[in-house]
Amino acid sequence: MTHWPATIHPLDTAIALESADSGLMRGRTVAEYNNMVGPFGGATAAALLRSIEMRPDRFGEPIALTVNFVAPIGYGEFQIAPTLVHTNRTNQHWTAALSQGQNVKATATAVFGVRRSDVWSAGEVLQPRVAPPEELSRTPGPEGVAFLQNYDMRFIAGPFPGNDQPKLDSTSTLWVRHEPRRQLDFPALAALADVFYPRVFARRGHPVPAGTISITTYFHADGNELADTGSDFVLATAQGQRFAAGYFDHTANLWSRSGKLLAASNQVVYYKDSFIDLSGQR
Amino acid sequence: MTHWPATIHPLDTAIALESADSGLMRGRTVAEYNNMVGPFGGATAAALLRSIEMRPDRFGEPIALTVNFVAPIGYGEFQIAPTLVHTNRTNQHWTAALSQGQNVKATATAVFGVRRSDVWSAGEVLQPRVAPPEELSRTPGPEGVAFLQNYDMRFIAGPFPGNDQPKLDSTSTLWVRHEPRRQLDFPALAALADVFYPRVFARRGHPVPAGTISITTYFHADGNELADTGSDFVLATAQGQRFAAGYFDHTANLWSRSGKLLAASNQVVYYKDSFIDLSGQR
Repeated sequence: MTHWPATIHPLDTAIALESADSGLMRGRTVAEYNNMVGPFGGATAAALLRSIEMRPDRFGEPIALTVNFVAPIGYGEFQIAPTLVHTNRTNQHWTAALSQGQNVKATATAVFGVRRSDVWSAGEVLQPRVAPPEELSRTPGPEGVAFLQNYDMRFIAGPFPGNDQPKLDSTSTLWVRHEPRRQLDFPALAALADVFYPRVFARRGHPVPAGTISITTYFHADGNELADTGSDFVLATAQGQRFAAGYFDHTANLWSRSGKLLAASNQVVYYKDSFIDLSGQR
Repeated sequence: MTHWPATIHPLDTAIALESADSGLMRGRTVAEYNNMVGPFGGATAAALLRSIEMRPDRFGEPIALTVNFVAPIGYGEFQIAPTLVHTNRTNQHWTAALSQGQNVKATATAVFGVRRSDVWSAGEVLQPRVAPPEELSRTPGPEGVAFLQNYDMRFIAGPFPGNDQPKLDSTSTLWVRHEPRRQLDFPALAALADVFYPRVFARRGHPVPAGTISITTYFHADGNELADTGSDFVLATAQGQRFAAGYFDHTANLWSRSGKLLAASNQVVYYKDSFIDLSGQR
């Protein structure tokens, strides 16, 4: 087992992978990225993306990542098997499976591609006009959710509900950055895309059992744009679209402070309808 | 080779699969669902979903489907290998690969699940208020695109561009149903989710080379809701979010006439920036 010096950011520990036999990569969950039950799904997505980034035969940058959460991931070691499906002239298709022992816990598909700076480009959906993060105060995450302590979240709308009135609009809009601060890169962006609490909490006015089943993130930023973003705040917004018989989806966007859509992300989430207490009194 | 009687809907021919050795399913593309180059991606998505639906060990209904278009699919026979990854108490995770000969042409992940009608449910994003389809006339698809002839499309906004001014808003909103008419089911809905022409056409004012790389569809409707929709029109809307260096995403929703969000769908598309002529004069 590798011991990391204390100066390593916990996200880097969470996505640290060692090559093992037959193309497998080994990693382990870290306590800083624990969720209520199991590790934060965003950290899992980041590790899956990282496993492909590390492959010597990978080319291009992430364009799309879909992660399906197949079964609960236990705390501790995991293995990732990335597989190159096909290389085209300007993009590559990958699959990956994350396992613990003999059990697959998550599957992923990813597209990497070469971006062509000489092609016509334009934004379309505009960043919401909101107050800058310096004018807002940090909202502490609920005590029972470790990974949220690693994000400095400043809500413009839709903060984490305690026991509030149900709302008809589940939208959350917030500035968010790593705490401690960390340079934004593709794994960090993949994790950030899953930072939203389940939209059903807002609609019901309180936490209920819920978990992401599948998340898809499209990366619009290239590496230079992420480098320009540095460790600054990202504006993140998410809204549920329909809550139907135990499954809802949400649509989310992540913007740089300069107004660029860094990534668009969507997910489908299962939910139940019984109150759960996240106040920290177990 | 199987010959189908003329009364079979071409979509049913496009998703007809025969079991072959070692769990493989065999199908073939049909001319009615040809796109400009290769088969309509929506028909491919429908066949992949159908391959899982046909599995005797499948339970529940489709919740999520992601299809990655790995390499160009040729006209003719293909094989699909669906794989059950894991069964939970209320859902199942699947992967599938579509091949021609030894070459994988598409990969997919899918979640099937049991819906629980006793759980709190609600819509959130509202259907756009538009004129009913009876007050609109059918827009013929461009001649070079066979599969669009199988859809009766009535545009409220954003019809297929010929050689127009570039637009700042790429949104298309249309009523659409099969022509000839066909009952809506999950494979048909998966296909319908890919019925939109590439959003970059609207932004540039003319067709350019473009193709879907990855599409993800979340199914909110259950089988009963689809049965209620029958063969009626569905309201479909899609908008591009950012066009960056050769890749754009769009976000789309599909609604029943009664205002239910049947499915939410997102895709990422590669594009180039050279004019192509779809007027039918080859």
